[in-house]
Amino acid sequence: MARRGAVRAAMAGWARAVRGLLLDVSGVLYDSGADGGVPIAGSVEAVRRIKASGLKLRFCTNETQATRENFVKKLRGMGFDINVSEVTAPAPAACHILEERGLRPHLLVHDDLVPEFAEMDKTNPNCVVLGDAAENFTYANLNEAFRVLIGMEKPVLISLGRGRYYKETDGLKLDVGAYMKALEYACDVQAEVVGKPSKRFFESALAEMGVPPEQAIMIGDDIVNDVGGAQRCGMRALQVRTGKYRPSDENHPDVKPDAYVNNLAEAVDIILQHL
Amino acid sequence: MARRGAVRAAMAGWARAVRGLLLDVSGVLYDSGADGGVPIAGSVEAVRRIKASGLKLRFCTNETQATRENFVKKLRGMGFDINVSEVTAPAPAACHILEERGLRPHLLVHDDLVPEFAEMDKTNPNCVVLGDAAENFTYANLNEAFRVLIGMEKPVLISLGRGRYYKETDGLKLDVGAYMKALEYACDVQAEVVGKPSKRFFESALAEMGVPPEQAIMIGDDIVNDVGGAQRCGMRALQVRTGKYRPSDENHPDVKPDAYVNNLAEAVDIILQHL
Repeated sequence: MARRGAVRAAMAGWARAVRGLLLDVSGVLYDSGADGGVPIAGSVEAVRRIKASGLKLRFCTNETQATRENFVKKLRGMGFDINVSEVTAPAPAACHILEERGLRPHLLVHDDLVPEFAEMDKTNPNCVVLGDAAENFTYANLNEAFRVLIGMEKPVLISLGRGRYYKETDGLKLDVGAYMKALEYACDVQAEVVGKPSKRFFESALAEMGVPPEQAIMIGDDIVNDVGGAQRCGMRALQVRTGKYRPSDENHPDVKPDAYVNNLAEAVDIILQHL
Repeated sequence: MARRGAVRAAMAGWARAVRGLLLDVSGVLYDSGADGGVPIAGSVEAVRRIKASGLKLRFCTNETQATRENFVKKLRGMGFDINVSEVTAPAPAACHILEERGLRPHLLVHDDLVPEFAEMDKTNPNCVVLGDAAENFTYANLNEAFRVLIGMEKPVLISLGRGRYYKETDGLKLDVGAYMKALEYACDVQAEVVGKPSKRFFESALAEMGVPPEQAIMIGDDIVNDVGGAQRCGMRALQVRTGKYRPSDENHPDVKPDAYVNNLAEAVDIILQHL
């Protein structure tokens, strides 16, 4: 347990002040797959322990292939104690932006995400909202989104994330970021990215918890979008060695987590010991 | 005719030395459309006059939706005196590069372009060749090209052009450059672009004519890819006010043609007067 002692020591200076945790979901709580996915060992119990401890908790995900309702339903099916009101996700964050700015979206998103935008006025669109549309990324749909954008005096492209690719059981898939780049180039615009690592996205998760950044820890498997993004907001951030973690992350040129932990269960062990 | 006198005067200093012409095709010889397209007024006769003058002539196109054979057949059907051996196009140029470097392509191109790569070994691919694949730009085909690239130790992506979009009778379409950007971002690589405005592409057209750049004129409708590209190779370049020409091109921040002409017929009139 010498290694764990070192992690504990590294966190000794600040872990005592922690009042809230932000958890990434895919790769931290569960591994996705064809059958919907499987929980990562110890994670179900770890979430239960966080809730029992009195720490504030927020699930902070870039998931855009399902509504929060269906996403939460899947996780509850795996045994997680999670509710829709505890989830910060890009689609609702995008809806806030649309409302604030009087934007009417043309959607290029996954069919299962469409209900998140049910309340939005979609007539005569004045922006394009791009998510991980998967099978909806057809030649016709991409041309249509492009035509909506290029027809605007000043094209507004809102992208739910900027991921390059991800792995599914039948192989690697291009993620929303690749299609975002295609439209950015064709229209000579820069997309506004909603979701991690956007500062605004983390800030809204913190506001929902009512915890200032210096009293919050982000726990994620993505060195750039989870760890780097949270640290830029003034939070501490731990990287778990599950999900998309790779050993080469530990030599990342720009981002250094406040500590590495083997998995969520270990992170929670150490954090609760400091309280 | 005061304007034409000014154009003639502008060219007086160098037009006498001209020995060869490079002509862009779409937007200079003809306007494309659902029925295959229509010749631009005076262009059929202008090509005939160039050939009768003794000037060397080369058709320099970024067309990648058809083999040169079919492309030439279409133009001959409109009355143009043009042969396959006179056409410089991206696919054959890409084949030279593949041969030189021992590259075996995975193709993501238009069905009608595939025969240009008939001689290439496509087993166990070690590069991806991307053209304007149009309806072949499916989610499945893009993921497949991505997987081939990301599976290489050092991904090699060869793109037949870098156009953003183009207009067809049923609306605007994303061009190959947009999909190139998507794959570049996903794989963190830079594509090698074959076709205008690549310097190597113009140089091979000049070599095929046997004319040095300072004795050649490029005539095109695209301010960046035709005019700017040719000038960077040491050629003079004229922009025609046909095809994709827009009045705003005359205020382009970086590129200034050696002269503007209303169309190919006028360009040929003035050039032949200087000989």
